[in-house]
Amino acid sequence: MSETSDIKTMKDPVYKLIEITGTSETSMEDAVERAIKRAHKTIKNLCWFQVVETRGNIEKGKVHHWQVTLKIGFAVED
Amino acid sequence: MSETSDIKTMKDPVYKLIEITGTSETSMEDAVERAIKRAHKTIKNLCWFQVVETRGNIEKGKVHHWQVTLKIGFAVED
Amino acid sequence: MSETSDIKTMKDPVYKLIEITGTSETSMEDAVERAIKRAHKTIKNLCWFQVVETRGNIEKGKVHHWQVTLKIGFAVED
Amino acid sequence: MSETSDIKTMKDPVYKLIEITGTSETSMEDAVERAIKRAHKTIKNLCWFQVVETRGNIEKGKVHHWQVTLKIGFAVED
Amino acid sequence: MSETSDIKTMKDPVYKLIEITGTSETSMEDAVERAIKRAHKTIKNLCWFQVVETRGNIEKGKVHHWQVTLKIGFAVED
Amino acid sequence: MSETSDIKTMKDPVYKLIEITGTSETSMEDAVERAIKRAHKTIKNLCWFQVVETRGNIEKGKVHHWQVTLKIGFAVED
Amino acid sequence: MSETSDIKTMKDPVYKLIEITGTSETSMEDAVERAIKRAHKTIKNLCWFQVVETRGNIEKGKVHHWQVTLKIGFAVED
Amino acid sequence: MSETSDIKTMKDPVYKLIEITGTSETSMEDAVERAIKRAHKTIKNLCWFQVVETRGNIEKGKVHHWQVTLKIGFAVED
Amino acid sequence: MSETSDIKTMKDPVYKLIEITGTSETSMEDAVERAIKRAHKTIKNLCWFQVVETRGNIEKGKVHHWQVTLKIGFAVED
Amino acid sequence: MSETSDIKTMKDPVYKLIEITGTSETSMEDAVERAIKRAHKTIKNLCWFQVVETRGNIEKGKVHHWQVTLKIGFAVED
Amino acid sequence: MSETSDIKTMKDPVYKLIEITGTSETSMEDAVERAIKRAHKTIKNLCWFQVVETRGNIEKGKVHHWQVTLKIGFAVED
Amino acid sequence: MSETSDIKTMKDPVYKLIEITGTSETSMEDAVERAIKRAHKTIKNLCWFQVVETRGNIEKGKVHHWQVTLKIGFAVED
Repeated sequence: MSETSDIKTMKDPVYKLIEITGTSETSMEDAVERAIKRAHKTIKNLCWFQVVETRGNIEKGKVHHWQVTLKIGFAVED
Repeated sequence: MSETSDIKTMKDPVYKLIEITGTSETSMEDAVERAIKRAHKTIKNLCWFQVVETRGNIEKGKVHHWQVTLKIGFAVED
Repeated sequence: MSETSDIKTMKDPVYKLIEITGTSETSMEDAVERAIKRAHKTIKNLCWFQVVETRGNIEKGKVHHWQVTLKIGFAVED
Repeated sequence: MSETSDIKTMKDPVYKLIEITGTSETSMEDAVERAIKRAHKTIKNLCWFQVVETRGNIEKGKVHHWQVTLKIGFAVED
Repeated sequence: MSETSDIKTMKDPVYKLIEITGTSETSMEDAVERAIKRAHKTIKNLCWFQVVETRGNIEKGKVHHWQVTLKIGFAVED
Repeated sequence: MSETSDIKTMKDPVYKLIEITGTSETSMEDAVERAIKRAHKTIKNLCWFQVVETRGNIEKGKVHHWQVTLKIGFAVED
Repeated sequence: MSETSDIKTMKDPVYKLIEITGTSETSMEDAVERAIKRAHKTIKNLCWFQVVETRGNIEKGKVHHWQVTLKIGFAVED
Repeated sequence: MSETSDIKTMKDPVYKLIEITGTSETSMEDAVERAIKRAHKTIKNLCWFQVVETRGNIEKGKVHHWQVTLKIGFAVED
Repeated sequence: MSETSDIKTMKDPVYKLIEITGTSETSMEDAVERAIKRAHKTIKNLCWFQVVETRGNIEKGKVHHWQVTLKIGFAVED
Repeated sequence: MSETSDIKTMKDPVYKLIEITGTSETSMEDAVERAIKRAHKTIKNLCWFQVVETRGNIEKGKVHHWQVTLKIGFAVED
Repeated sequence: MSETSDIKTMKDPVYKLIEITGTSETSMEDAVERAIKRAHKTIKNLCWFQVVETRGNIEKGKVHHWQVTLKIGFAVED
Repeated sequence: MSETSDIKTMKDPVYKLIEITGTSETSMEDAVERAIKRAHKTIKNLCWFQVVETRGNIEKGKVHHWQVTLKIGFAVED
């Protein structure tokens, strides 16, 4: 599901997908947001994401970092 | 794992599974709750769910909608 | 990827997914179109599909029927 | 594999697939039969099934219920 | 699906899953029962199982042993 | 798991795997046995099998044929 | 789904599955047809196929060959 | 991704993975934390986890328990 | 399967794979060709592709856009 | 990836894939080579392989046999 | 494939599977051997293994540790 | 498992994953090393890899090239 309001003006758009892992000490959602925020710094037109894997490392019996791997899709320009 | 307290009175119950996507601007958990809440409007005996896929769309470098697809199981009556 | 232009007016929409197999003597695309066309007869708001499986039966060394199984997502109303 | 003798009179039939879990205290086969029997009560033209998952619950070191989840395909009428 | 009547008294229980292969000269169900029976000897609170894989060895054109691999879940005490 | 008592005399044996579907009106086990029995007619040294898929066709709300697809491994001679 | 009109006269038929890759410069459907046509030269009773993988090679920014890998099932005689 | 700061002093460490399901009435993250906290009671050197499955049971149209199954890796001592 | 005629002059070549979604109002094949054509604009040495996923969006009961996601492999220069 | 220099003279070649397990006391690579060497004895035009599964048996705490299962593709003649 | 010579004296043996990651600076095979060697220290009757995942960490553009995750099966005594 | 010593100074690092195929006439390990070596030429901070697929091409009944496809993760700078 999901994407593409602003790309609609392109006919037959092409999207690229990248895979990226965000990490957070707080939550899965925060790890996702950080991955997307970082990708947004260098890539325009981010459209959608899908979660590929959720992992984390443990210190002293607690989650230290949530590590969520995403595929992010973005429209490439002609 | 998981279901069935109230159905226990049926011997050899049969369950149906449906697939549904909840969306939320807040969190994955909220997307799940919204999907279940909507299913509950028209279906009795919802018992358990499993997450099939987590996706979302992105606007301006942030998650706009979390989109979580679930299978939901419910007991069907004789 | 993909859906939802007209549902955008709903906040936090919920989608249901159904699984359906279209068949065609002509092509995979035609099998998909027939499955969607049939679903459209009884369900409003069809939004997107994904191909789950492509099969077919064979007669006299030729494809007799293309059988393409889809998941189709549609918005459910409040 | 498998289906459809009586639907053959339709050209390019369309099938719907549903997912259903049958339970039995006896055997996997019985759990499958119960799921199909229940579906047959309300749906015509059941054609084929495939086993998706086999689970069960345990009481006192024995299988209490076999729980077999199926996809069942049936022809939808024009 | 499936488990947990007697663990319900624990709030937020934790379960451990183990993987085990039962073998039988008779049937798949018997292989499952033997795996569970053996696990029950040393582990309390077995709750549910799921079939992971079904294999077997062959002698003289017949199944010699059915080999069914299960995950078995059990509640761990506080 | 599983195979090979009689091939042990070969050093570093090589096995071939074939995929075969057995059908039965009776049970899953019987469908497996029929597939193996048929393979045994033309192939020596059948060693092990693994279940790949379990399906069936339905007539009048009952399983008409169980269809179990196996991979069967057998030792090939030097 | 799919197969077997002419094999129906056999009780409890057994099927063999082979894996084959057809190639075509034209379309996916043509690659499938070529694979089936070639199998039909040496094997009777081809019944059904399922698409396992779709690949291709590229020359000068265009698809040179579509390469579609199929499993093809056929009834084996007693 | 992810583990192992303190194990670095071992050359070529070996890790064991266990599978465990945490439950929570609150959130997915809490279910994960509870599973890890429980494992930490009896196992030293927990290093990392990966989410295997997210399920839950439903009561009155709401998630009653989040059930998150993890693999947890820990270093085993020589 | 498939690639590499012109790269053969390199000893032990290295390939990079990218993931890209082509869209088309016409057919799956056209969606693939558009994805490859776009990649070819900026990347030399495209060698092969494999189809990862086929989806699409629906408008008024018809496929509006075919969306085919590919992995494309290309040789990277020393 | 990978195959087929000498088959290039055929237009639209068709390939068959077989599944085979090589074993070796030495290494995974050796198990692969032995499987291919054996297949080469009876089949011309072997083109490529892909590793499907890596297993082995253990004796006295050491790997006794590496068992690597491959799919091997070869061009079939017209 | 693979196991069990010495367990043959048990009728209908039961096996337990554990998951373990071996690491090595040398090779995949060595990582496997180290995992098995370590398991052998505390578990009798190790029978077979299967490779679940192959990963590693990188330092200065070279593999620093191969990390191979295995399932290891062993016979449990009555 | 696996990564990240030097990135530890970043709080909540973000990683990118790329997919790359290394080839070698010698061994799987060598194919992996060549892929990583090539990636290291243009990317800093390579942290970990996981094997996605192992294939190869065959010439004259021998492996000509091992082709190992990896995902490689590296830390991206703020």
